[in-house]
Amino acid sequence: MQPVVSGSQPHSGQVKEHHCLSVYSVTTMGNCSQGCKDYFSRQKNTNIRLTLPVVCFVWQIAMIILFGVFIRYNEESDTHWVETKAHANITSDIENDFYFRYPSFQDVHVMIFVGFGFLMTFLKRYSFGAVGFNFLIASFGLQWALLMQGWFHSLDPQTGKIFIGVESLINADFCVAGCLIAYGAVLGKVSPVQLLVMTLFGVTLFAVEEYIILNLLHARDAGGSMVIHTFGGYYGLAISRVLYRPNLHQSKRMQGSVYHSDTFAMIGTLFLWMFWPSFNSAITDHGDGQHRAVINTYLCLASTVLTTVAISSLSQKTGKLDMVHIQNSTLAGGVALGTAAEFMISPYGALIVGFFCGIISTMGYIFISPFLEKTLKIQDTCGIHNLHAMPGVIGGIVGAITAAAASESVYGKQGLINTFDFTGDFKDRTVLTQGGYQAAGMCVSIVFGVVGGAIVGSILKLPIWGDPADENCFDDEVYWELPDDEEEHQESIPPILEYNNHMIHKQQDLSESNFSVEHCES
Amino acid sequence: MQPVVSGSQPHSGQVKEHHCLSVYSVTTMGNCSQGCKDYFSRQKNTNIRLTLPVVCFVWQIAMIILFGVFIRYNEESDTHWVETKAHANITSDIENDFYFRYPSFQDVHVMIFVGFGFLMTFLKRYSFGAVGFNFLIASFGLQWALLMQGWFHSLDPQTGKIFIGVESLINADFCVAGCLIAYGAVLGKVSPVQLLVMTLFGVTLFAVEEYIILNLLHARDAGGSMVIHTFGGYYGLAISRVLYRPNLHQSKRMQGSVYHSDTFAMIGTLFLWMFWPSFNSAITDHGDGQHRAVINTYLCLASTVLTTVAISSLSQKTGKLDMVHIQNSTLAGGVALGTAAEFMISPYGALIVGFFCGIISTMGYIFISPFLEKTLKIQDTCGIHNLHAMPGVIGGIVGAITAAAASESVYGKQGLINTFDFTGDFKDRTVLTQGGYQAAGMCVSIVFGVVGGAIVGSILKLPIWGDPADENCFDDEVYWELPDDEEEHQESIPPILEYNNHMIHKQQDLSESNFSVEHCES
Amino acid sequence: MQPVVSGSQPHSGQVKEHHCLSVYSVTTMGNCSQGCKDYFSRQKNTNIRLTLPVVCFVWQIAMIILFGVFIRYNEESDTHWVETKAHANITSDIENDFYFRYPSFQDVHVMIFVGFGFLMTFLKRYSFGAVGFNFLIASFGLQWALLMQGWFHSLDPQTGKIFIGVESLINADFCVAGCLIAYGAVLGKVSPVQLLVMTLFGVTLFAVEEYIILNLLHARDAGGSMVIHTFGGYYGLAISRVLYRPNLHQSKRMQGSVYHSDTFAMIGTLFLWMFWPSFNSAITDHGDGQHRAVINTYLCLASTVLTTVAISSLSQKTGKLDMVHIQNSTLAGGVALGTAAEFMISPYGALIVGFFCGIISTMGYIFISPFLEKTLKIQDTCGIHNLHAMPGVIGGIVGAITAAAASESVYGKQGLINTFDFTGDFKDRTVLTQGGYQAAGMCVSIVFGVVGGAIVGSILKLPIWGDPADENCFDDEVYWELPDDEEEHQESIPPILEYNNHMIHKQQDLSESNFSVEHCES
Repeated sequence: MQPVVSGSQPHSGQVKEHHCLSVYSVTTMGNCSQGCKDYFSRQKNTNIRLTLPVVCFVWQIAMIILFGVFIRYNEESDTHWVETKAHANITSDIENDFYFRYPSFQDVHVMIFVGFGFLMTFLKRYSFGAVGFNFLIASFGLQWALLMQGWFHSLDPQTGKIFIGVESLINADFCVAGCLIAYGAVLGKVSPVQLLVMTLFGVTLFAVEEYIILNLLHARDAGGSMVIHTFGGYYGLAISRVLYRPNLHQSKRMQGSVYHSDTFAMIGTLFLWMFWPSFNSAITDHGDGQHRAVINTYLCLASTVLTTVAISSLSQKTGKLDMVHIQNSTLAGGVALGTAAEFMISPYGALIVGFFCGIISTMGYIFISPFLEKTLKIQDTCGIHNLHAMPGVIGGIVGAITAAAASESVYGKQGLINTFDFTGDFKDRTVLTQGGYQAAGMCVSIVFGVVGGAIVGSILKLPIWGDPADENCFDDEVYWELPDDEEEHQESIPPILEYNNHMIHKQQDLSESNFSVEHCES
Repeated sequence: MQPVVSGSQPHSGQVKEHHCLSVYSVTTMGNCSQGCKDYFSRQKNTNIRLTLPVVCFVWQIAMIILFGVFIRYNEESDTHWVETKAHANITSDIENDFYFRYPSFQDVHVMIFVGFGFLMTFLKRYSFGAVGFNFLIASFGLQWALLMQGWFHSLDPQTGKIFIGVESLINADFCVAGCLIAYGAVLGKVSPVQLLVMTLFGVTLFAVEEYIILNLLHARDAGGSMVIHTFGGYYGLAISRVLYRPNLHQSKRMQGSVYHSDTFAMIGTLFLWMFWPSFNSAITDHGDGQHRAVINTYLCLASTVLTTVAISSLSQKTGKLDMVHIQNSTLAGGVALGTAAEFMISPYGALIVGFFCGIISTMGYIFISPFLEKTLKIQDTCGIHNLHAMPGVIGGIVGAITAAAASESVYGKQGLINTFDFTGDFKDRTVLTQGGYQAAGMCVSIVFGVVGGAIVGSILKLPIWGDPADENCFDDEVYWELPDDEEEHQESIPPILEYNNHMIHKQQDLSESNFSVEHCES
Repeated sequence: MQPVVSGSQPHSGQVKEHHCLSVYSVTTMGNCSQGCKDYFSRQKNTNIRLTLPVVCFVWQIAMIILFGVFIRYNEESDTHWVETKAHANITSDIENDFYFRYPSFQDVHVMIFVGFGFLMTFLKRYSFGAVGFNFLIASFGLQWALLMQGWFHSLDPQTGKIFIGVESLINADFCVAGCLIAYGAVLGKVSPVQLLVMTLFGVTLFAVEEYIILNLLHARDAGGSMVIHTFGGYYGLAISRVLYRPNLHQSKRMQGSVYHSDTFAMIGTLFLWMFWPSFNSAITDHGDGQHRAVINTYLCLASTVLTTVAISSLSQKTGKLDMVHIQNSTLAGGVALGTAAEFMISPYGALIVGFFCGIISTMGYIFISPFLEKTLKIQDTCGIHNLHAMPGVIGGIVGAITAAAASESVYGKQGLINTFDFTGDFKDRTVLTQGGYQAAGMCVSIVFGVVGGAIVGSILKLPIWGDPADENCFDDEVYWELPDDEEEHQESIPPILEYNNHMIHKQQDLSESNFSVEHCES
């Protein structure tokens, strides 16, 4: 008789590093500590006590030095503003860009930290990693983004300085968003050190493609369908492809959600959904530009929700809804309107974009994700292909078409110039040409995502970053000191075991069985 | 010996469609699949795989067509704004209404989706339905509201178009709030299709009563005590009355909360509470109007919290607090100040309103809700009578009295005109008359709520909407693919069962008992 | 044979007032009800059914009366604004202070109620108390703060009235923050009545020290490093010292977190972290002042995250991260930049402050907290010493140094005057003198915190406030009606017990053991 009683301890059969409670028959008793050792020696080395602190310290010190050399307050955030105002004949403090953009900035900030962070908490035991590593890489990424974007977009040639204001902060948050999207594809399968490396390169690539798309091609992309979502999506997918784990099924037990983790994820979904109008309007033109972008995004997202629900319900035998779809596909409309939100796409146009995005994104979760995993070996934890990559490409196409179809009769002469910024070198550009450049911009973002991701993926494949073993993926246990949720149970289980134990002793006379409880502490 | 060991599986005895783990004595073994079938055939048909997608698709397509015909950007969100500005001699982009209202709009938006959504997650197994269906019906409702409110309030007679801007979005959110309030009364007892139908009619009724109250009667109701809360409350209560379920006690086991679901609900409570000043000030007059409405609401709500706690503590033997009261009654002050928030009710006046609302609303939960259920057969899941209907009526009365008592000495001549909009057709109206019309407005909202709710309730009673059976109410299982929270337990339970099983086999010689574990998968 | 089977009931061994499920051998059966009674008679009296309602009612009525006597709308929130505008030649409604400060106010409001509230939900069974009592005392505190701050700062000498506007609301929220910080030190160990008393005195002391620091010493402290965090921190620590509980280990089982409670706490952390730029900029100068404070705080906090992660990882054998550090120390940078945020500390300066604060605060959790508890007998539940007191002092020092080092070349002549408000009586003050007064301000805040806390602690030690017994600390059971989370388990456990019971009866013949299940309801 070799009964194994593990009580009601969750995760039995799972690798536990600090304690393993098992019940062996006496014949295996003596081998416990040896067996534990053997078992753990098979593991990958996930000790990041050296690498993580070193990376954090060195990079942060580098940031301080580079900020010291390059970053200064811009004129609207400098104490000389009082003189600037007088000089420029500005009568009121409220005409500081701060008051145009700060409410939107805070909404975007919430999307980055609470939105992306909580959206990824859906896994049953990866909420700490989701929200915690999201926090870490966003905090690093925004500093690096201020520098990279500054060098490419706003380095003052005379002083050699980068002057930052609230719009720089928004752009830094945007840049970080690209990397957080990529995180979604590899969620649960990488170490925080890998994530930091991924962010370092991601921000760098982002700044370059953004420079090419927005400055050289002079494409418009205020909400970042191409620059943020398409790039971020393909960057993450390419990395995930390179890091393909054929034996990921070994951590299958950890891949699902539980009831409350799905509820936590809805916090992320809703804050992303609600504040997406701020995302798409945060850096558009003052006045009507921001106003219009908000209306378009608001409508588009509402439409997405209905078609997402429809397809989700259709996909199940009895019409039940799937939380994965509700959590993710409802957001696709915001992604797809990133480019066109500031255009005169008209309210019903926004609804149409949302309509199709809800359908396509939900179908992506049902049909394309399994295909990607089986055929292309892309393991996409959060389904970023359906939420960001595909809708981002749609957004790029919508933007190109809408731009090409823009007309003076709809926009007004000055309106057309303002909206597409047909000034300076680009003052003779036609809307058709603009449409072409928009399309070209989309291609650039895909190429940067795929090629960049492939290269960065190869770097991340080096066996020095402390990534988890296949059987330990999606488990906070690896990188976090976890609270002992089971304590309560354990308090009460021992008596059961004791009782059972007791009974067995009673039965020994009958059955000669041996039974004991062992705690082997590593 | 026929012991039934269901391990520590939660919800034993509950209808489970995809798997049932039961332990039968061998004599019932062969009948398992048959028994399962019989059991499920008794259920109501909650299959919404046809109706839900059809409703979502058809209605969304209708929205697109109607938006195409009617909805256009208003002048502040159109690219022609640059010309409008020049024309109207507006010197700065910041005088676009967007900058006056957008921060408040986003706060209201959070209240609608996170506030109402999470407030209703308190039930132990209806969090998905609470937050998910709230999301669905709000997304549909706001589109329909833009049309309905547009037709009644802002249809341009010359062009036949509705011109929308940020204030339209706020009003659409407000209109949706009325329907979400009604959802609170029927939470857990209706299908998503019923909710969509309820929202369709709710928004329609709302637009009509709003037109009568605000335009015809020219009552003031910036925060919607009457228009939103009184109407929404009675609309929901009337529907709930018509849909009365005498056997609702059959799902009694699902009607409570659990510790974490109550904590989730506090997220809803707090976001509603914190942003209520934005709700009541979102569409009030620029400048002092918004400023004053914020101060009044802020103070009123603070006062409500203290009296809610006091009454809640008084209601229990040892002074313990009840989460239901804290989650709901603390908000009653915001409801009751919806009408008067923009008036010169004075800070201490706001405190007094909050003081009494906390008391009345909490007592409502203690005394009136049970009475409503027993005597009037109104099953009010979230207690909207105490949170919206009653405080809404109080708000209407407070508004009427405050309006009637307004004086030029307090408001100033121009202030009085601005506050009550005594212009155009109403330029000769006195404050006393205004008070009367305010009271009339309240009656209109009650009548619309009760009569409208009774009619819509009758429609919802048709047996075609896929509503759940009495024993399946308050259970996400019916409309959602649920994660398998019990997996962890099951991983560990089989050994226990196996062990027990094992022991019993040992004992068979002693007792002739039969015992086996069966998994019957549907 | 006296096996004690308590099933998988959580909190076995814990005091349960309404039901106790225990299994005794038959020999102790008859004594059950007597044993229960004896057990409970040892408890402290935590009945607050009299005190809590009385305090709430009396204080709220006092607020109403005092508001009636003293509080009025200021000119920007009064209906006479239309005249004020004309008088002051203000052309647009948007120049109302409301539009400068309202978005920041709402962010601060979220920090107070969701930020502080949820940050403290980390304990496994004190989420209701954390978020609920936070709600209660903040709601009272902000009313009392409006009065106290009004009397000291803005009592109009002619009319004897206090005129309030949006800035008053922000200041009231700030004042409340000081008391909520103090709550962190005594979390789980005090009754709500004690908390209200603590808030009453805390707000009073706050208003006085704020008056001394800001008005008499004319120190600058826009984000409240000294006024809010240092004072609040030491106030709480001093109270905790006086209320020292030598036997607190008796509730050790309740002191940890569980997985989901830690996730809830991250909601608090993130909303505090994201909105801290609004906190530090909410009452700074219009225009560049607010703009700069936001940039500085944003950067400082980002830097803090990286060093917090680094030290947290270093502190564990395998580099694992500790949620306590991530939840708390990541915020230290915001605290430490409270004074200097509006100064020209420069972006890299902000990064440096954050760099060191992350290190110091995390080390505080690792080394100083245990030292404080063992040696100084300060039991600091949330570690406010590491999150508020220490970083607050650092912030005061940083502020003093930055002020002393300010120069006209960096600030500009007018910029220097604006930033340090060198006007009126202080128009001849030098930056060096200002630095000295800043340092003096910090000392004042420490003295007020320590001395005030010691006195208030003594008052709270009186045995009339209904505080919990040592073995019932950190348990919502004492002050809240808790939902019956265990119901599910109990539904399923009885069969096990029954089964075991059954088996034992079978075995009685073999072993003469006696066994029974008893429910003794109090």
